[in-house]
Amino acid sequence: MLIVGLDPGLACTGWGVIAAEGNRLSHIANGQVRTDAKAALPARLVELHDRLAALLAEHGPEGAAVEEVFVNENPQSTLKLGQARGVVLLAAARGGIAVGEYAPRLVKKAVVGTGGAEKAQVHAMVQRLLPSAKIVGADAADALAVAITHVHHLASARRVA
Amino acid sequence: MLIVGLDPGLACTGWGVIAAEGNRLSHIANGQVRTDAKAALPARLVELHDRLAALLAEHGPEGAAVEEVFVNENPQSTLKLGQARGVVLLAAARGGIAVGEYAPRLVKKAVVGTGGAEKAQVHAMVQRLLPSAKIVGADAADALAVAITHVHHLASARRVA
Repeated sequence: MLIVGLDPGLACTGWGVIAAEGNRLSHIANGQVRTDAKAALPARLVELHDRLAALLAEHGPEGAAVEEVFVNENPQSTLKLGQARGVVLLAAARGGIAVGEYAPRLVKKAVVGTGGAEKAQVHAMVQRLLPSAKIVGADAADALAVAITHVHHLASARRVA
Repeated sequence: MLIVGLDPGLACTGWGVIAAEGNRLSHIANGQVRTDAKAALPARLVELHDRLAALLAEHGPEGAAVEEVFVNENPQSTLKLGQARGVVLLAAARGGIAVGEYAPRLVKKAVVGTGGAEKAQVHAMVQRLLPSAKIVGADAADALAVAITHVHHLASARRVA
């Protein structure tokens, strides 16, 4: 089963695709989609959407996961993030892929074992869980972390069922 | 020349299409796209996008206009609005339509003549400028107001050029 994790942002959206067989994880691909800061907002949203749509069509994941957003003190940043996030969710949902949303504490708990983990610990653990991955940056690492969380969540849901 | 005005919102997005010949305006259509509050966010964004895309394809406007957002005290509302707005801008920009953004004061000034006008005055003046329009609600009226602003703006730009 292929899962894509997404870490939305207007300037840079991280993505990561992993394969899961039960609890066994393997890395497929990761990357970051950047949009041209000099372009107008609608054009940036089109670029973000189309590049993600192409990646999703290429990899064909069966599930998608994003982090829930805990909003930021700066309302203009929240609006900007919201606009990018809307387009990212649209691209993911477009192909009929179910999208899971996970609170940041849950991502830390799933990856590191504790909801209070630091970002650096999360990234180090993502690399340890996916040893073959060449992780291109912090946003891609965050995307892989939420994909891992989704797999754990599906695995526990199956255990309960 | 056909112009569409858009007033984005996740629960309800207003839209209005007007035709302009120089400064002469006429009403073509207006409406409100509501999404199902019981559906998941990604599904609501898909519904909003696809219904707007169908409306844009039906009317084929050459320009689009939205109000700039001055953010709201509640950050979760800002995020929600941002997500809807991202999808609305994407749908508008998709067909290569240029999207103008106008500050709320500018919309009031263009429609009523003063940047400090009340909402009710704006709506009354939209109805007076487009006498044949059966305006379906406040969000559709806001959408028509920003479309009118865009036409005035284009007309002044031509006068200057």
